[in-house]
Amino acid sequence: MTERTRVAIVGAGPAGLVLSHLLAEAGIDSIVVDARGREEIEHTIRAGILEQGTVEVLDGIPGSRARTVGQRHDGIELRFAEPGGEAQGHRIDFADLVGRGVWLYPQHEVLRDLIAARLAAGQDLRFGATVTEVTGVDSARPTVRGARADGTPFEIVADFVVGADGSRSVVRPSVTGDSRSGGYFREYPFAWFGILCEAPPSSEELIYSNAADGFALISQRSETVQRMYFQCDPDTDPNALDDAEIWERLQARVPGTRLAEGPIFQRDVLRFRSFVSHELRRGRAALVGDAAHTVPPTGAKGMNLAIADVLLLADALRRLLLEDDPRGVDGYAEAASQRIWKAQHFSWWMTSMLHVAPDASDFDRRRQIGELRSVVESEAGRRYLAEAYTGWPLRAAV
Amino acid sequence: MTERTRVAIVGAGPAGLVLSHLLAEAGIDSIVVDARGREEIEHTIRAGILEQGTVEVLDGIPGSRARTVGQRHDGIELRFAEPGGEAQGHRIDFADLVGRGVWLYPQHEVLRDLIAARLAAGQDLRFGATVTEVTGVDSARPTVRGARADGTPFEIVADFVVGADGSRSVVRPSVTGDSRSGGYFREYPFAWFGILCEAPPSSEELIYSNAADGFALISQRSETVQRMYFQCDPDTDPNALDDAEIWERLQARVPGTRLAEGPIFQRDVLRFRSFVSHELRRGRAALVGDAAHTVPPTGAKGMNLAIADVLLLADALRRLLLEDDPRGVDGYAEAASQRIWKAQHFSWWMTSMLHVAPDASDFDRRRQIGELRSVVESEAGRRYLAEAYTGWPLRAAV
Repeated sequence: MTERTRVAIVGAGPAGLVLSHLLAEAGIDSIVVDARGREEIEHTIRAGILEQGTVEVLDGIPGSRARTVGQRHDGIELRFAEPGGEAQGHRIDFADLVGRGVWLYPQHEVLRDLIAARLAAGQDLRFGATVTEVTGVDSARPTVRGARADGTPFEIVADFVVGADGSRSVVRPSVTGDSRSGGYFREYPFAWFGILCEAPPSSEELIYSNAADGFALISQRSETVQRMYFQCDPDTDPNALDDAEIWERLQARVPGTRLAEGPIFQRDVLRFRSFVSHELRRGRAALVGDAAHTVPPTGAKGMNLAIADVLLLADALRRLLLEDDPRGVDGYAEAASQRIWKAQHFSWWMTSMLHVAPDASDFDRRRQIGELRSVVESEAGRRYLAEAYTGWPLRAAV
Repeated sequence: MTERTRVAIVGAGPAGLVLSHLLAEAGIDSIVVDARGREEIEHTIRAGILEQGTVEVLDGIPGSRARTVGQRHDGIELRFAEPGGEAQGHRIDFADLVGRGVWLYPQHEVLRDLIAARLAAGQDLRFGATVTEVTGVDSARPTVRGARADGTPFEIVADFVVGADGSRSVVRPSVTGDSRSGGYFREYPFAWFGILCEAPPSSEELIYSNAADGFALISQRSETVQRMYFQCDPDTDPNALDDAEIWERLQARVPGTRLAEGPIFQRDVLRFRSFVSHELRRGRAALVGDAAHTVPPTGAKGMNLAIADVLLLADALRRLLLEDDPRGVDGYAEAASQRIWKAQHFSWWMTSMLHVAPDASDFDRRRQIGELRSVVESEAGRRYLAEAYTGWPLRAAV
């Protein structure tokens, strides 16, 4: 059975759901499909640092708890030691430097809010619907085909198709014209070993620590659950370490802080990659969020960049579909790229400045400490970092 | 014949000469020796960007023309293009950002001023005196031995020996205890092809251009002589290109500016290296300037860092030799290292941000443009750069 909608959105992550909301606000119908079930979407643990601008967008969606349940953070700490010296913490005071903050609110909580809000608003939102093919993106009637959870095939004919389906995007090849990844790419020689544990917070704010044997990030989730990471080899088996070994590694990397330990109930290894699709739009199809780009997690940009894409694209689609003005869509790739490449740089910079590369020479290591000192000793350096971390202003497409 | 002095300074470059001046002001005798002749010292072309603090130090030396004959620059331009776009210039306005400036005044002119001033003040300053050995640095009577231009041996017994003798320092092994370089080291996969030419200026201020096929720097020397550079392979033979080819390469790398061409009367290939000696002081000997560290030229830090070392060491020697207080000398290495590693970082940063590495991927290249845009679009980013370029405050040793 062929169905019609104005915008077919593939992927019910933050990008797809926020886009459906913004389109609905403009009076534009959409269908959102996702191969995963609602349970899986609402329970996959992902990072959760929201820029102030992202929270402001979520504020506009009924029932969003980001601002109320999320924890506002007005700064982070960079911790490092001079060679042979004691580790020192240096606070980057966002409130003082840029008058802005960030919110810690896990992505799966954002998704619970968004799914509930979209369903309450009557959104056509389909879980367990696997897309197998996107065709006709160069025509006025791009088409999405696939199968529902029960095997029934579906076909959606739309005015525009959006790939919001993550880093393994099915929509991407129809935009890049390439069956492979079709993008700018960088790999890193390290990963994060992440844990979730039952324990009280070990610090009030995030600690980004560059220690002699590698990076660690002390993060918070709630009064009783904490998220922490330490740099590891990308091939590390998350089950190869027992709890005591994990705590030993973490503790060694935040000298000066006594970590509050507790039962570890989840562990994972996050590989680092930087990726930007060669093309972000072709004809009547566009990519947003992780389908368009992935960033290493050190800059906390992932979900925020997705929301920035969506703001641009929602405005572009409004102009195309309601005003017959193609300029927003035609300019989408260039407009989105401006922010994407700044965020790619920032994510690379934070990663390079804070991690110990396996092949780092003594020179590289001391230069890195010289860099950290240059940043924290300068109001301009701290502000340059704070501007990026809390997020550059969001803009509509030209 | 054994001679006595309080401080034996090896090297009559900016570091050694300014040190002899500062010591003389404090009433401390010194002997300065250099293997080169006066002619050679006064005619070797070297870069000549002086931080404001460096000029202020030179102002205190009678006859210095840095401020009067040197050209004050209140900014530089960073030029780059978005992928597929036109190159754009972005001014880093030092005066506006940090209320400071830099001076263009070639190093050999600084040396002419300094040599004249020191000789007029009665400084014991010996050209063509080659040092072959430094001994006794762990004793109270370190000794410098060598031979004069005519072959006559000399021996200077001092209270302290200073190695201000450049990157191939003869004094360094006596400080590092190592006959090899004994330092933190980094090489770069590119060099600068530099020219001096007879032509009017092509721009009022320096242009640092990141072009698709590599870096170029358009610099000025006077109304009739210009200094320009373009990134090249380190193995380039400076005589392999004719004038027309050189102008073609330069012109291609500063799109948007019509270079005023003229006869090229000097050409050289400057290799890039970052180096910091493992030790900056041992017993009664210390290193300053290029003997202690070298930086790639992109950050314009070379001579300035030498002067910063010398200010610290002059104060430390005054306390040691006049007040019998060893704390300044004991703390010299750590105090100097603070600035050295910030300057090493800045030099590496400017180099990495502006040059096209031979192995740069498409991702690296776009990230680099994203970085340049992040810096120039942010007042904090521009100020962070301007602070470093114009020079962090100079401090005396603790």
